[in-house]
Amino acid sequence: MLVDTSSSKNSKPWSRPNCAVTVYDTSGPYTDPKVEIDLERGLAPLRAAWIHARGDTEELAEETSAYRRARLGDPSLAALRFPSPKKPLRAKAGRRVTQMHYAKQGIVTPEMEYVAIRGNLCREATRHELDPQHPGESWGAAIPRAVTPEFVRDEIARGRAILPANINHPEIEPLVIGRNFLVKINANIGNSAVSSSIEEEVEKMVWAVRWGSDTVMDLSTGAHIHETREWILRNSPVPIGTVPIYQALEKVDGRPEELTWDLYRDTLIEQAEQGVDYFTIHAGVLLRFVPLTARRRTGIVSRGGSILAKWCLAHHEENFLYTHWDEICEIMAAYDVAFSIGDGLRPGSIADANDAAQFAELEVQGGLTKRAWDQDVQVMNEGPGHVPMQRIRENQEKQLAWCHEAPFYTLGPLTTDIAPGYDHITSGIGAAMIGWYGTAMLCYVTPKEHLGLPDRDDVREGVITYKIAAHAADLAKGLPGAQIRDDALSKARFEFRWEDHFNLSLDPERAREYHDATLPAEGAKAAHFCSMCGPKFCAMEITQQVRDYAAQQGVGTEEALSTGMHEKSEEFAEGGGEIYR
Amino acid sequence: MLVDTSSSKNSKPWSRPNCAVTVYDTSGPYTDPKVEIDLERGLAPLRAAWIHARGDTEELAEETSAYRRARLGDPSLAALRFPSPKKPLRAKAGRRVTQMHYAKQGIVTPEMEYVAIRGNLCREATRHELDPQHPGESWGAAIPRAVTPEFVRDEIARGRAILPANINHPEIEPLVIGRNFLVKINANIGNSAVSSSIEEEVEKMVWAVRWGSDTVMDLSTGAHIHETREWILRNSPVPIGTVPIYQALEKVDGRPEELTWDLYRDTLIEQAEQGVDYFTIHAGVLLRFVPLTARRRTGIVSRGGSILAKWCLAHHEENFLYTHWDEICEIMAAYDVAFSIGDGLRPGSIADANDAAQFAELEVQGGLTKRAWDQDVQVMNEGPGHVPMQRIRENQEKQLAWCHEAPFYTLGPLTTDIAPGYDHITSGIGAAMIGWYGTAMLCYVTPKEHLGLPDRDDVREGVITYKIAAHAADLAKGLPGAQIRDDALSKARFEFRWEDHFNLSLDPERAREYHDATLPAEGAKAAHFCSMCGPKFCAMEITQQVRDYAAQQGVGTEEALSTGMHEKSEEFAEGGGEIYR
Repeated sequence: MLVDTSSSKNSKPWSRPNCAVTVYDTSGPYTDPKVEIDLERGLAPLRAAWIHARGDTEELAEETSAYRRARLGDPSLAALRFPSPKKPLRAKAGRRVTQMHYAKQGIVTPEMEYVAIRGNLCREATRHELDPQHPGESWGAAIPRAVTPEFVRDEIARGRAILPANINHPEIEPLVIGRNFLVKINANIGNSAVSSSIEEEVEKMVWAVRWGSDTVMDLSTGAHIHETREWILRNSPVPIGTVPIYQALEKVDGRPEELTWDLYRDTLIEQAEQGVDYFTIHAGVLLRFVPLTARRRTGIVSRGGSILAKWCLAHHEENFLYTHWDEICEIMAAYDVAFSIGDGLRPGSIADANDAAQFAELEVQGGLTKRAWDQDVQVMNEGPGHVPMQRIRENQEKQLAWCHEAPFYTLGPLTTDIAPGYDHITSGIGAAMIGWYGTAMLCYVTPKEHLGLPDRDDVREGVITYKIAAHAADLAKGLPGAQIRDDALSKARFEFRWEDHFNLSLDPERAREYHDATLPAEGAKAAHFCSMCGPKFCAMEITQQVRDYAAQQGVGTEEALSTGMHEKSEEFAEGGGEIYR
Repeated sequence: MLVDTSSSKNSKPWSRPNCAVTVYDTSGPYTDPKVEIDLERGLAPLRAAWIHARGDTEELAEETSAYRRARLGDPSLAALRFPSPKKPLRAKAGRRVTQMHYAKQGIVTPEMEYVAIRGNLCREATRHELDPQHPGESWGAAIPRAVTPEFVRDEIARGRAILPANINHPEIEPLVIGRNFLVKINANIGNSAVSSSIEEEVEKMVWAVRWGSDTVMDLSTGAHIHETREWILRNSPVPIGTVPIYQALEKVDGRPEELTWDLYRDTLIEQAEQGVDYFTIHAGVLLRFVPLTARRRTGIVSRGGSILAKWCLAHHEENFLYTHWDEICEIMAAYDVAFSIGDGLRPGSIADANDAAQFAELEVQGGLTKRAWDQDVQVMNEGPGHVPMQRIRENQEKQLAWCHEAPFYTLGPLTTDIAPGYDHITSGIGAAMIGWYGTAMLCYVTPKEHLGLPDRDDVREGVITYKIAAHAADLAKGLPGAQIRDDALSKARFEFRWEDHFNLSLDPERAREYHDATLPAEGAKAAHFCSMCGPKFCAMEITQQVRDYAAQQGVGTEEALSTGMHEKSEEFAEGGGEIYR
């Protein structure tokens, strides 16, 4: 998306020109006026030709998952079902179709090219490439001056970045998740037994990407998980993640002890053939770690973690996700589903942060990461949770060291427990910090966390808060070009170009609404003051007068600048000295 | 305020008892059901006897400020005026009546005792004194295990803390602002030429302290500043700060070049005799620094800074606040008004952060601080503004070094410019971080910053965001007892004691409202699940089952705990296994 400020009338003649600013846009075709959206048909399969051209996949005559076949064959579900599901693709026998596999072979895929172009935000074309910005502190990251396809390939090959892109989800606009790229965010959606419907979930996905969510996790737990997911996938321009154990548990009517590997395996394949791009898998919750949680203030708070812990104890056996890891990797490699290795023992309170249970699991995540890489499967690692500020960095450092620089993907962390109703903020603080330290993707938290299900407003609030955290992190790391938008917005602000000010913001609608709440008149959009200080007290207006005085009195060192200011000021005076134009 | 969770029925027998939790309460008598509030009479003068007992003040027969006398004598203002203003107190000739003066003499005042008691949050009485918490990282602060009156005295004597308490504002409940105490927050209120009224401003003050603001700054710029301020002071249980130059400018009809020392001096005395507790004074904006702002992205954004810059340039003379500093100190010492030395050249955008103009002024603040201390005047230093995360710490470090550990008082800082409408969040991130690094008080930013005047909702949102930032900072610094409330709330959360969960939160009303939005029934307040996961999937419920399994199978290492869990579980089963009780 391009915010064009170049033709704005109010720009100052003395200052540098107002270049167009390209902003990272996750909303896909939904904000493209040229595209007609038809939810029943789904989005155009942009990647289909790329996938086909590689020649390493085959279309299956029939779905592999027994469960999926049953659902597709059940006439009572016809009304709920996405109208025209396609036959699934799978890797040809003996082939691995992951972006990591290609990367290791030295192949730059179209997906890699796409994310390289996307990651540069058209800086060169919009003449921002040489803008100065603050030196960053990247804590040892290897951030390139410009993102090249070859750099993307190399990062994916060595496991420092992932490009989640299931071969059965050709509708996505590819993105890359890694410490050396723009920090990404995820929004969770999902109904629950208590409320919510299919339409609402699809709508939530569209809503989340409209505000800037880079990926969306579908955490549904209700009756029609399978059908809901199909609607979401066919209409999602961003990668979709899930936690397959949730659905597996539905299939055994909520009794963790009845979960089996076969049932879980069928669920993985069911979802992989639908097109889910990454799976959260809690394979690090080992039997011996469970007692470590007994003394905790808040025990196990991860749903997946508690399900697996219960299974382990019920059977007194090792976590079946851990014991079947290599088989799981094989499935992931056949569809290019990426791992998001779950943190089932993450702390659920400040008291439990950075404890033995949490770090024991993180260490196991590191071993599992290596084994997944051996099969060319892409991996990121999930992290906490609730952590006081002074202990956040330890999380990032241990993850980098133990998990071999695989991308870290954290939930917040929340920096205090005492603000239910505001946990987007308690966690936004921690998210910005851990993003700075190196976390590649930040999972949002909404204001309703701990209290209820998020509605549309909550999703918007959560997404924008996390866009702020991610962007603050990009600035702090010194990502090239990160400051362009800040600079352009501040320039617009200083020059009273209100429309540019609104349009360059993360939420133009809210900026406009708040401005208009005090000064609703259209003319106020050209006012040389705002409602905060009123016309006489505007510091920015006075600063302009200061520049003018400086010019008159020869005090200023910036004669060229000052002269321009002076002319502007005379022009203003000649125009009658009115505030509104 | 005491949140009593000790009699809660749902508490687990196996766990530690639910002690009452004392929370820091800024709302004064407004939340005390035993106090009858009468805005026309004002609050009871709690400190009057303490001030009187010191015998170093005298009641003036007549107000010193000519302006004030004129306003009090103007019959047309009768309807606007606070009904019964008292005659002002002033130090007897040759006396200094500041808390710093007493502290240097080795005197522990009742105010110092008060803040010492207040700062310990009754930890001993509520049996929390031995609770473990995370080790903090205090960046060299000298945080005591318990706050003693002597420690308070010593901190004030050496200038590391201030106790803002004008002798003409006896209504306040004293507080201390310093790096070695709980981090404080300030809320700005104030009408502007564009809108707002006296009633609204008083209401805003009450509203701000109700949510937790430790001090309130009255930044009014309208027609009836003097009268508005009187109403606010007489009804405020917290210290009030102002920026006297705003009112001085009103008196010369908005023309900075017409400001004079005499007029400003009269304004200082006018406000000091009303009872303002601290003044923002932009004495560090020196003539030679002004050209340093010419190349900036956003010039001078501080109102006070731009007024002084304009004055300097118009007269081509040094800032008259700087040249009259010692006389200003004399006035401050006669009423115990504390300095908040303004940062008139603070950066107004990420681009301008930490630049030459900003740091030149900060260095001057350090010199002014020393000179104020020479006259026993209490001082804090104001700081930015807009700063990317990686450059925040430099601000705190330089301030500590150059300003001799005087308390730092910052506005945010905002960590990005791109989110107007959400600047409570962009700045809450920076505020939490700089609070951790050592800033003593955080000036809030509301969602309307840069766009319009905050309304009630914005004030609440801003205050709670800053309570979060301050508390996250306290936790990170390792302030003794800071974690008590987090622990108590998390325990309540884990045990499904919803009412305690709400009551322990920073905003119980919102927590309850959000919970009820999904599960409105009263019975849901005793439910062993919440709306996020529904009854079958509740991770916390499953954790309890895990503990139970662990006990049955002898897996757990915590037999005592587990046995209790087991009993609870049987009790639950015997009760019919129903979710609701």
